[in-house]
Amino acid sequence: MIAFATDPDTYRHWRVDYDGPVATVSMQVDPRGGLGDYELKLNSYDLGVDIELYDIVQRLRFEHPEVRAVVLTGGIDKMFCAGANIQMLAGSTHGHKVNFCKFTNETRNGIEDASAHSGQTWIAAVNGTAAGGGYELALACADIILIDDRASTVSLPEVPLLAVLPGTGGLTRVVDKRHVRRDLADVFATRAEGVKAEQALHWGLVDAIAPKSGFATVVQARAEAFAATSDRPMEGSGVALPRLGASATVSADGLRATSVDVSIDRDLGAARIVVKGPTGPQPTTGDELIAAGVQSWLLSTVSELDHAILHLRFNEPEVGTWILTTEGDPDEVASAEQILISDADHWLVRECRLYWTRTLKRLDVSSRTLVTLIEPGSCFVGVLAELVLAADRALMFDGEPSSSSRSAPVLRLTDVNDGQLPMSNGLSRLRTRFWGRDTVHAAAIDRIGKQLTASEAADAEVITNALDEIDWDDEVRLMLEERNSFSPDALTGLEANLRFVGPETLETKIFARLAAWQNWIFQRPNAVGPNGALHSYGTGSRPQFDEGRV
Amino acid sequence: MIAFATDPDTYRHWRVDYDGPVATVSMQVDPRGGLGDYELKLNSYDLGVDIELYDIVQRLRFEHPEVRAVVLTGGIDKMFCAGANIQMLAGSTHGHKVNFCKFTNETRNGIEDASAHSGQTWIAAVNGTAAGGGYELALACADIILIDDRASTVSLPEVPLLAVLPGTGGLTRVVDKRHVRRDLADVFATRAEGVKAEQALHWGLVDAIAPKSGFATVVQARAEAFAATSDRPMEGSGVALPRLGASATVSADGLRATSVDVSIDRDLGAARIVVKGPTGPQPTTGDELIAAGVQSWLLSTVSELDHAILHLRFNEPEVGTWILTTEGDPDEVASAEQILISDADHWLVRECRLYWTRTLKRLDVSSRTLVTLIEPGSCFVGVLAELVLAADRALMFDGEPSSSSRSAPVLRLTDVNDGQLPMSNGLSRLRTRFWGRDTVHAAAIDRIGKQLTASEAADAEVITNALDEIDWDDEVRLMLEERNSFSPDALTGLEANLRFVGPETLETKIFARLAAWQNWIFQRPNAVGPNGALHSYGTGSRPQFDEGRV
Repeated sequence: MIAFATDPDTYRHWRVDYDGPVATVSMQVDPRGGLGDYELKLNSYDLGVDIELYDIVQRLRFEHPEVRAVVLTGGIDKMFCAGANIQMLAGSTHGHKVNFCKFTNETRNGIEDASAHSGQTWIAAVNGTAAGGGYELALACADIILIDDRASTVSLPEVPLLAVLPGTGGLTRVVDKRHVRRDLADVFATRAEGVKAEQALHWGLVDAIAPKSGFATVVQARAEAFAATSDRPMEGSGVALPRLGASATVSADGLRATSVDVSIDRDLGAARIVVKGPTGPQPTTGDELIAAGVQSWLLSTVSELDHAILHLRFNEPEVGTWILTTEGDPDEVASAEQILISDADHWLVRECRLYWTRTLKRLDVSSRTLVTLIEPGSCFVGVLAELVLAADRALMFDGEPSSSSRSAPVLRLTDVNDGQLPMSNGLSRLRTRFWGRDTVHAAAIDRIGKQLTASEAADAEVITNALDEIDWDDEVRLMLEERNSFSPDALTGLEANLRFVGPETLETKIFARLAAWQNWIFQRPNAVGPNGALHSYGTGSRPQFDEGRV
Repeated sequence: MIAFATDPDTYRHWRVDYDGPVATVSMQVDPRGGLGDYELKLNSYDLGVDIELYDIVQRLRFEHPEVRAVVLTGGIDKMFCAGANIQMLAGSTHGHKVNFCKFTNETRNGIEDASAHSGQTWIAAVNGTAAGGGYELALACADIILIDDRASTVSLPEVPLLAVLPGTGGLTRVVDKRHVRRDLADVFATRAEGVKAEQALHWGLVDAIAPKSGFATVVQARAEAFAATSDRPMEGSGVALPRLGASATVSADGLRATSVDVSIDRDLGAARIVVKGPTGPQPTTGDELIAAGVQSWLLSTVSELDHAILHLRFNEPEVGTWILTTEGDPDEVASAEQILISDADHWLVRECRLYWTRTLKRLDVSSRTLVTLIEPGSCFVGVLAELVLAADRALMFDGEPSSSSRSAPVLRLTDVNDGQLPMSNGLSRLRTRFWGRDTVHAAAIDRIGKQLTASEAADAEVITNALDEIDWDDEVRLMLEERNSFSPDALTGLEANLRFVGPETLETKIFARLAAWQNWIFQRPNAVGPNGALHSYGTGSRPQFDEGRV
């Protein structure tokens, strides 16, 4: 089982140094610290290395309000990062490769999100070779400085050496983010030896170059310049994050945490995820949120949801359907999330909102069917109403609760649903849902703040169906059974094609186009067959290719 | 070998009826007329059926200026179209499936292009069942009328029945073009039995419904309404198109036609495509173009290029690199294409420009490396300069021609390159090339009309490299050999990810996202394995799925 819990005391692969507004994150991978039976040479990484990086990104945001610029560099002489470990890739199942790529992509998107929205700009100080995933890590930073030592290069050698694509957005970021001309990008991505400083600068692959003697000075100056533009507070403390999943007890049946429970029904291939609303008073200002920290419902719940998604993705691949439900007092949810609007500009409130945004995006790109059930006792309000809008189908119980202890099912949109938690296409889930139907969208916005009955929710088109109480159990079960009878691959493709309408962004291009092509290539004998490039790499024998184009 | 030549006298699967401004295209597939050993039951189609449809779309545009609306209907009682033939799919190689899907997608995009830009609106008169690719054919029309007979349905049953995706844009068009809510789209695309008239109208899957008694009247009325909005001429004649490839002699070495030659170097895995400039006077007005017809260089060349691309795609899959070259007098090219600007609004000039646009798009989505060589004697002007801008790499010879009979290499942008021939992302190839670099783009636009030397072309960034005459032969050969040593799959993925920057459209989503997912699914045992859905369909046994999600 893959666990995601880590903290600075247990990092094996990274060091973080703090110096006022500038933190420095140094990659120094322990070659013997891999999750599997391979050696992580030359700052190459596997999932375990990236789990630590994710932890670093998160803690910098929440625990260090004073950090306004983050320098990412290689902690090994002449080596920034050699990318994903090839032995690891060659020895992994298809499913692990795909999940690994998705997680690493999400971490890199999170780095971009910190630069863009948190006032914490990431700068790549490329102190030596940055190959493949190594250069892609640099590409996720807002600024890339490459050492000009006549030896160090940036490169994307995946196509010529491994017969696969750069898997963490390298191609897309080179042309779409950095505006490198597509023919130069083609030359670059087929040149195994890469590009040295001057040419890299000329082609737009990096933002600055500096000789070894002046490298640290240039990096520091640029970091300080970015730091000066930040709106993060100069003083005050952050909130300590627990290890991811610390509050969860994982078992064969699912997991139990404070606000998130998961129960797995293996016959149905489904996991029921219950998100529980808050109990007890919640912070009403950013400063109270700092004091409450992860005791606050808003922060603990998103963290538990994040963990549950990752656990199910990696450790329960045969559970194809995630049933999203909620339990609790709707007014308590409304009250707890009100801070996202009322103190929106507070740095920690913003972080909290951005964490919800990223976690809901994780849901969007999870290759699982998402079914939301709006049942008696539910509290789908605001942030939790996003679970309705994120679903492939949302069904609402229409009738009287059978137990007097349960209230009628609750669905209530709030201002949070009106653009505070955008999808990776840049639109709110409401806007995405009503793409090209502005009147229906406006009508839904008009219902903000109102508790919707099943028929009102159906009229407003925010649910798929209202089901009569008499039919509820049978129809839900039938739908889940039917879903479980379909090909998981076809469902993955179907869902990926329906979830993101309208405009495309770097992120949607990476998850849709790049990831789909890479999934395809990861199936092809030219890459993964016994004579394919992934297996022949490093053996001295050349791969055998079927030359047919498709 | 697959041939693309056909004409109305030899159609086996379609009938076209003309009635003034409204033409009716009826699908009535000959069950025994398939290209392979399968029966094309119930208006199901294979590549041969679609080659005829492509011919129909082309001839309606060029030969029938008077046709302003096209009704597409099923020529079999209660059957519109059952989609791609499943036996054909199950028995095809991966490469054929992919090429088949690409061609059918291009034909459907061509139908949309006719509705949007040619004043020839396609209307689907769905007279009976429209399943899978059948409904996708209707989706390519601007208007869908479904018969309300309590039996006929529209459906996308691929996921539940075949464990593959609808392969011709159905998912994308349902949500992005028709704005069907994504959860309803999910229900729809997993409901094998489909949706009948009233619900289809309610969900937005069709534009109108009509009972059998009134069906023809409603269809006619809507067709006439669309016809009334057309700007096509009411009278006058069109130009007869030859059978596609009629002027070409195909051999094992390549093909020879009037303006397009192809020579294959199998050791290099490369085809050299030579496009020859015009000789002799060319039409200078639309009316002269009508008189010249396919004798005109502009029209004959695009048709020959279209044919050459299709031939190489389907019949020469192991030729992974297409080398694009030109030969001729640059002033003659400039003069011949001038009509695209000077008489732009003429209906036939417009058709000619749109045909170039579609053919260049075929090039963009061909999974082959495109290398353009700008050599002595070349005439890369205007429409032909697009071959430079479409290339993954463009190399220009810098020096004196070795033979006195050859002129210096020529590259000259014209107004045609400034938006007349957009890519599927909606941008000109120049704009795409300089995405996010408006100053460089403006500088290139400033050079319109000027003959560029190699160093000027390099300065303007419209080529990848200028190569000195001394190095030319060696460097070109080295580059081609290197390309041929890479995995064809990795190159396909690389090129697909670099060619389309910036905004996405229905077309780019279909070719990038949908096609990539489908390619992946077409590799997976759940679809194509011995116990996969494609093989078990119709046998009575249920497919066996590996339940793991990725």
